[in-house]
Amino acid sequence: MIRLYDYWRSSASYRVRIALAMKHVDYERHDVNLLAGEQGDDANRARNAQGFVPTLDVDGQTIGQSLAIIDYLDATYPDPPMVPRDPLARAHTLQRALVIAADIHPVNNLRILKRLGAMGIDQAGRDEWYRHWIAEGFAALEALAGDGPYLGGDAPDLSDVCLVPQMYNARRLETPLDAYPKLVAIDAALTALPAFAAAHPDKFSPA
Amino acid sequence: MIRLYDYWRSSASYRVRIALAMKHVDYERHDVNLLAGEQGDDANRARNAQGFVPTLDVDGQTIGQSLAIIDYLDATYPDPPMVPRDPLARAHTLQRALVIAADIHPVNNLRILKRLGAMGIDQAGRDEWYRHWIAEGFAALEALAGDGPYLGGDAPDLSDVCLVPQMYNARRLETPLDAYPKLVAIDAALTALPAFAAAHPDKFSPA
Repeated sequence: MIRLYDYWRSSASYRVRIALAMKHVDYERHDVNLLAGEQGDDANRARNAQGFVPTLDVDGQTIGQSLAIIDYLDATYPDPPMVPRDPLARAHTLQRALVIAADIHPVNNLRILKRLGAMGIDQAGRDEWYRHWIAEGFAALEALAGDGPYLGGDAPDLSDVCLVPQMYNARRLETPLDAYPKLVAIDAALTALPAFAAAHPDKFSPA
Repeated sequence: MIRLYDYWRSSASYRVRIALAMKHVDYERHDVNLLAGEQGDDANRARNAQGFVPTLDVDGQTIGQSLAIIDYLDATYPDPPMVPRDPLARAHTLQRALVIAADIHPVNNLRILKRLGAMGIDQAGRDEWYRHWIAEGFAALEALAGDGPYLGGDAPDLSDVCLVPQMYNARRLETPLDAYPKLVAIDAALTALPAFAAAHPDKFSPA
């Protein structure tokens, strides 16, 4: 039995939902309400040492960190693959994924924004912070993008799985996207795919 | 021909140097002086779209992001392996590595600290920021650590390669470590290994 503990708007959770949908994995979804602070509850910390979402529970064995979860899914449900087999192509997929998963998302997540607020940075300052790191990362990713239709070329890969949730976040914060025409086109191609559409936060919104 | 573009004190570079040493890979090292701003030069941006270090250059093909570089090295120089073969064990190694490589290091690196400074956060505030995210990540990692001697158990793995540079950074900023006895013991066991010792920043200090 596979259980996913996630939050509808968490972008790391959104990545995992895309991978699960691409691989047609059946799972039971459990909501951890970040706005209510449920991620810090004992129950969530018992399954996720960081007190984060997402967590994958496989027959009682838990895995945290979205890229580690997706690696597990890729090892156990290999079709379709999330990374190419060629060592250099594989490294480039991971590089693109990590531009988002290491250098955009973690510096913009809720705990960081809360801490900035506690340090006296106002909402406008926090929004500027958020958009700045997206702009830095997207500029690099635009330079690394090929001719499409996806970041992975002819088939979506792990970096595409990271791109769509980050684009969703960028638009929520009204980040200008004119400088990233390749990324905008790739995102449009990706969001039209059934697995990406099925994982969209709106499908899991409590309202 | 393998070239590594790095900076002696960059902790992501330190990770790659450890992996290269563990796998006995011959390489030519090139310094990119972060304090002089060389990472933003055209030459460095041509090889690393983010304007970061480290970059691995393999016969003119470049790879950025330390975990992507180490994945490439693991695919091309498989001995010793950086991740276990079992899917769950592999995911747990990646999870531990990402606690550091996604959730500690990127929120504390030079560009973040500089931006905090530009936003009016003074040195004491920046130091507190730095120690806070190390403490959060190390608390999770201490809970995830097994009985040693390494994070990877009997053999060092990718998460050990990430731990040692993060411990080095923690000590530079005088982060209290009393709450992480397992991590301190594992770090001591790791730094005694020849490959870890050979990669230490002091070996590459310009002074």
